[in-house]
Amino acid sequence: MEVSTNQIFNFNAGPAMLPAPVMQIAQEEFLNYRNSGMSVMEMSHRGGYFQEILDRSLINIRKLLNIPDSYEVIFCSGGATAQFTSIPMNLLDENETAAYSLTGVWSNKAYQEAKRFYPNVVSIFDGKLSNFSEIPELTDLSIPKNSKYAYITSNNTIYGTRYSRFPKLSIPLIADMTSDILSRELDVSSFGVIFAGAQKNIGPSGLSICIIRKDLLHERKSAIPVILDWRVTAKAGSLYNTPPTYSIYMAGLVFEWLLEMGGLSSIEKINEKKASLVYNALDESEFYRTFVPQANRSIMNVVFHLKDSNLDSKFVEESEKYGLIGLKGYRDVGGMRASIYNAMPLEGVERLVSFLKDFEKRWA
Amino acid sequence: MEVSTNQIFNFNAGPAMLPAPVMQIAQEEFLNYRNSGMSVMEMSHRGGYFQEILDRSLINIRKLLNIPDSYEVIFCSGGATAQFTSIPMNLLDENETAAYSLTGVWSNKAYQEAKRFYPNVVSIFDGKLSNFSEIPELTDLSIPKNSKYAYITSNNTIYGTRYSRFPKLSIPLIADMTSDILSRELDVSSFGVIFAGAQKNIGPSGLSICIIRKDLLHERKSAIPVILDWRVTAKAGSLYNTPPTYSIYMAGLVFEWLLEMGGLSSIEKINEKKASLVYNALDESEFYRTFVPQANRSIMNVVFHLKDSNLDSKFVEESEKYGLIGLKGYRDVGGMRASIYNAMPLEGVERLVSFLKDFEKRWA
Repeated sequence: MEVSTNQIFNFNAGPAMLPAPVMQIAQEEFLNYRNSGMSVMEMSHRGGYFQEILDRSLINIRKLLNIPDSYEVIFCSGGATAQFTSIPMNLLDENETAAYSLTGVWSNKAYQEAKRFYPNVVSIFDGKLSNFSEIPELTDLSIPKNSKYAYITSNNTIYGTRYSRFPKLSIPLIADMTSDILSRELDVSSFGVIFAGAQKNIGPSGLSICIIRKDLLHERKSAIPVILDWRVTAKAGSLYNTPPTYSIYMAGLVFEWLLEMGGLSSIEKINEKKASLVYNALDESEFYRTFVPQANRSIMNVVFHLKDSNLDSKFVEESEKYGLIGLKGYRDVGGMRASIYNAMPLEGVERLVSFLKDFEKRWA
Repeated sequence: MEVSTNQIFNFNAGPAMLPAPVMQIAQEEFLNYRNSGMSVMEMSHRGGYFQEILDRSLINIRKLLNIPDSYEVIFCSGGATAQFTSIPMNLLDENETAAYSLTGVWSNKAYQEAKRFYPNVVSIFDGKLSNFSEIPELTDLSIPKNSKYAYITSNNTIYGTRYSRFPKLSIPLIADMTSDILSRELDVSSFGVIFAGAQKNIGPSGLSICIIRKDLLHERKSAIPVILDWRVTAKAGSLYNTPPTYSIYMAGLVFEWLLEMGGLSSIEKINEKKASLVYNALDESEFYRTFVPQANRSIMNVVFHLKDSNLDSKFVEESEKYGLIGLKGYRDVGGMRASIYNAMPLEGVERLVSFLKDFEKRWA
């Protein structure tokens, strides 16, 4: 059964695989970036080399997502957790309210954090009632009229679900896209704010990117911690303080790789193909189970269970020998999870499918 | 005059040079960490490989600084700017006060940020009166009795000054050691909290380390943004959210390098030798000037001026041809600055001294 290969495929949910060509370039330039005699890691964030890296990566993410000029794009340090506080603090004044759709652990965390500072925020959907297998249609939700924004997590890493559509709402839609940004085409103009921690489809952890409709960047009545204040970061062109320079460089390489791949329409097709291969293998089998309805299946995180959970540890053990790393499911959900972000090559998915069949044959 | 060498010496104030042996290891392991088939950048922060990296780096920084068990050590995302808010929020309740010694731009920023949330904090020293060339003796300062802590910046990157001594105060002493942590021996027990952004003596930017006396980690009356709450990070062993994993790995390599060098007593001797070489060359000359009194000269950042500032741009231009990068002074101070952190080899300082003499000979 063991495959004779040195290539490991890493199905971790994040930090996750990065595109092989990106890693190659980064290694080659690691000690000496473009004959500067320095690593990007060693460069001043105020110097010409880094400014060029920063400018280029911002231009390229704008290109990839076709971001209108009416949106600001900033890099922040920290991941989504930092943004869970930034969002209400940058968008609400005291006693104001916002509407959170709770489709999983991360939207819940965002909601709980907002509630600590703005007790009037409300939940408009509770996925717990369906064990988080369901995702509502945004237009079906009843959003209180005085809500300043509606908040969603576009893709739920843990439960393997996603919003398939993002209709235009009458209030700003705020989306945590940490686990599916840059995986599919997107109409940015449907959103007030899009943010994402980098560690899944963008680059190393410790960096997040925020895309903010400019009219939302206005003064708040209460003080905001300077590091969480989007206006400060935006005004300084993401250089108010020393940003995570190396992570921005890596993100820039990922953006270039995506553009060379043909942009988001191309990567979306590849991602759909990869996801179909896995879901089809699961659907065809009586040995594996999935709980997510077709319409809301994530194309980034495929969550599945073995019918016989006694085989779980065997499955993980054998998959690792097969060169497939990180398939164990999230602790609260159990079962398995295959995270197949942009960087996962088709070959990795094919190996997974072949392992699924092989394992079933031997243990069914 | 030009030196025939490919080796560049990088005198940037930060992000700054990293130790050459560390960069070599990091490059070698970049694509495949210890036969895992993955880059450290691609590994789950919940997996065994990363946990071992994290544990080892925490053990090693404890060893280096001989940190007592009564102190917690945590990694946070972001640099010192995030901590400027964390400090008062984690240490003060509403209307309480703390005493800030303002010896430069960074202590001023920390003070201004604290004042936005705790208007009762006070300044106990204003370096502006001496153009920031002076550093007070801490025991000379009159600290209001109700102050919950005293705050200092141990080394001022911009002005090239430092506190030479850290006496034990009756209230917790909080020190921003971003630009001189790990450069000299230190009695941690003199401090309530030590924190440092990584990008000078620790590793890549986007990471900070906090060393906190455990008794200071108690509940506050007001809510603290989760990402700024030391207790949350401490309780989760720096894994509450996805930390900047690659930066922690790099920091760990730097700690190991320092231990191999013989620890802080050894690096301190080397740093003193390097700083003396530069200061002596400046003191011996009529062509260059320094403003910092002997007792408070930083051994990390040597700030100096050419007597004739018309030669400044010439100096920078020629130094770059000489393989010396980043000598231009901070924008508000002018002149020159040589940042000679732990990673700057003696050879780099010798080349700088040789350039100082050569330039003077030709332009005096």
